[in-house]
Amino acid sequence: MHHEGLTIDKFKRKAVLVSDAQNLIMPHMHLGDTEWIALAESGGRILAEDVIAPHPYPHFRRSSMDGYAILSNDTKGCSTDKPIYLEVVDEIPCGSLPSIKLVSGTVSRIMTGAKVPDEADAVIMFEMTEPNENRGRRYIQLKREIKPGQNITPVGQELAEGEIILNKGRKLGTGELSVLATFGIHKVPVIKKPRVAIISTGSELLGIDEPLQDGRIRNSNTFMLANQVREAGGEPHILKMISDDLTIAKQRVEEALTLYDVVITTGGVSVGDYDIMADLVTEKDVEKLFNKVTLRPGSVTTAAVKNGKLLFALSGNPGACFVGFELFARPAIGRMLGVTNPFLPEYRAELGTTYSKTNKFTRYVRGRQEIVDGRVLVYPAQLDESNVMITIKDSNVLIVIPPSNESIEAGEMVKVIKLPS
Amino acid sequence: MHHEGLTIDKFKRKAVLVSDAQNLIMPHMHLGDTEWIALAESGGRILAEDVIAPHPYPHFRRSSMDGYAILSNDTKGCSTDKPIYLEVVDEIPCGSLPSIKLVSGTVSRIMTGAKVPDEADAVIMFEMTEPNENRGRRYIQLKREIKPGQNITPVGQELAEGEIILNKGRKLGTGELSVLATFGIHKVPVIKKPRVAIISTGSELLGIDEPLQDGRIRNSNTFMLANQVREAGGEPHILKMISDDLTIAKQRVEEALTLYDVVITTGGVSVGDYDIMADLVTEKDVEKLFNKVTLRPGSVTTAAVKNGKLLFALSGNPGACFVGFELFARPAIGRMLGVTNPFLPEYRAELGTTYSKTNKFTRYVRGRQEIVDGRVLVYPAQLDESNVMITIKDSNVLIVIPPSNESIEAGEMVKVIKLPS
Repeated sequence: MHHEGLTIDKFKRKAVLVSDAQNLIMPHMHLGDTEWIALAESGGRILAEDVIAPHPYPHFRRSSMDGYAILSNDTKGCSTDKPIYLEVVDEIPCGSLPSIKLVSGTVSRIMTGAKVPDEADAVIMFEMTEPNENRGRRYIQLKREIKPGQNITPVGQELAEGEIILNKGRKLGTGELSVLATFGIHKVPVIKKPRVAIISTGSELLGIDEPLQDGRIRNSNTFMLANQVREAGGEPHILKMISDDLTIAKQRVEEALTLYDVVITTGGVSVGDYDIMADLVTEKDVEKLFNKVTLRPGSVTTAAVKNGKLLFALSGNPGACFVGFELFARPAIGRMLGVTNPFLPEYRAELGTTYSKTNKFTRYVRGRQEIVDGRVLVYPAQLDESNVMITIKDSNVLIVIPPSNESIEAGEMVKVIKLPS
Repeated sequence: MHHEGLTIDKFKRKAVLVSDAQNLIMPHMHLGDTEWIALAESGGRILAEDVIAPHPYPHFRRSSMDGYAILSNDTKGCSTDKPIYLEVVDEIPCGSLPSIKLVSGTVSRIMTGAKVPDEADAVIMFEMTEPNENRGRRYIQLKREIKPGQNITPVGQELAEGEIILNKGRKLGTGELSVLATFGIHKVPVIKKPRVAIISTGSELLGIDEPLQDGRIRNSNTFMLANQVREAGGEPHILKMISDDLTIAKQRVEEALTLYDVVITTGGVSVGDYDIMADLVTEKDVEKLFNKVTLRPGSVTTAAVKNGKLLFALSGNPGACFVGFELFARPAIGRMLGVTNPFLPEYRAELGTTYSKTNKFTRYVRGRQEIVDGRVLVYPAQLDESNVMITIKDSNVLIVIPPSNESIEAGEMVKVIKLPS
């Protein structure tokens, strides 16, 4: 774990604002390469290029009803008192083409979704007609005037040829897959998933299948981070834990920086007053971006660049590690993927219960959002300290509590960051 | 596509309410089998059993600060005017155990997260002390009284031994993986993913890699449904499209019902007035649950049971197919997974713009939710007809518009169903 008290002097940590820290990171994040994958495999991926409609949609005049394609002019003056009779000369199931040219006095039976004959300018609903037969010919009886255009979906109603179907940076979900399939786009250009190395450090850590030992804890942050990386669109690679050999530790982090797109460490490697992460970022080929943020939990979050690669050194405290990832590593991964807005959604909501803890740093409190009668209410978790792990699972928002000496009352408005659910 | 007009008479469709249709389905959905998988593979899966804490957490008294473990009694009467000096006799890094028993007048240097010696009853922050050396011995100077318990996280603060960590039916996300890892639970019991067959029907359908043809459309619903099945926790299996051979079609659906846990078809197989789905559910070994729902889009949604297996025959219209899945197939899959609440979240929100379309059936309008100043506003999509596909991708809610002859004004409250994002 990071040793805030110990390292303050040695590493001259100067706290920066969360937004400044984010702004320091972003210019170093470069858009990943494009790869083409099958549409069926593309769910959750990020589009690398704008996709343009290769044809209008619908690409033919489509009937939106089961009924009869007609020339609307034939129905002029028609009423209950003056019904007309039109001859059924063709039947057009879905997927078939009209086989007979309509002329005045004739209609085609047509199904929902089928192509309307070019000559027809309206479709009349099946239920509005009465069938009729005369000398082996089929007719319909009709008792009202029909306006042109009725029940016909025009070509290009949803999208014209050449229009953008989806913009690059868009995440592909259900609706996106549907529209891409509609246009026959079966190979999709997406940004390669950034490969993110996760290294946990700390001689107190046990593997999760090791028996419990007094004074030691299990390594849970790697599992947490791996899922966060996956949710952010990255590909997590859990590397071997590092305990307390400083030379090996340094070597491993540097190796990871050459092999992966991003490296995230959790916890400090501490032997007495030594913190390898803080130390590493003071080396001459490493650019330290920040090593302290005005933020609780997670103030001792470090970010550095080496040979264009980002290193995030997050706290070993689960709560702080979680928040540090969401505020800094997630948008960084998002930027590499080119997503339109790589930050989590933010909005204002009503505090459901009074929050009385005060702090000189901005606090990102884990909490729960509820919607009641159209109002968004947020409730801070009971245990929200940085070392607490249990409330992460019950939180769907981070409530942003500005630095203050006074409590914030229930009913006041606060800024909220929506966590992925 | 379903031919509502045509089939109303032949199949005697009688519309049921959405909630009644859901209630007809649920008793037929049976909890799937349990499988044990590695924790690292379990993200997004549903827990099959309650998980009990095998030990308290924390399982030792943990220091929440870098500082010194002390006997608080030693600090009685101490002040700026009367500082005391305590001898530092031990150093306890994270993961190590105390090696010297503290007695009055002695303290141990201790790191955040390390085990507090049994004799100590408080930890004093590093910054509150002054180091001092005398004849090769290390001391700290202290100028204030310390209360017992300070900066010590007690055993079991987050969870006591035997408490439920996570209830069965819980979906495993970031916070859940973290807590399971913390307790060393590296194999997790989850419900097997229901295997869901997806069959699209309709002679108008082209494969997505086939060139466009006049009057025909590409098969987009299978891609859409596959993603919906995946989001609902099922395993989608896309079977061969069925065009217009009725015998083969029937055979395929029946075979799928024996091989998969659930079968979803989209579109009707229509040859003239024939609808194989409507026809199939009238056979003697098939129990029809419903074949029409008071709902737009998607009124012609059919559900039936054969040998305990559910068949959902959804509309071929993309909008109707999408809604039919979310209202009926999603909760059915959720019930097989044992999820606590298999239905999508529902709440009330404020209509952002007037909705003037009227209908005798309840309308599930695709729409977009925004949060403005703590209020939830919802905006109906411009094109929300059942045959429209383009607006699915831009929707994050379904707005429930009750049957009415009048428009609903902006500012009125409406029921909203949150779509998975």
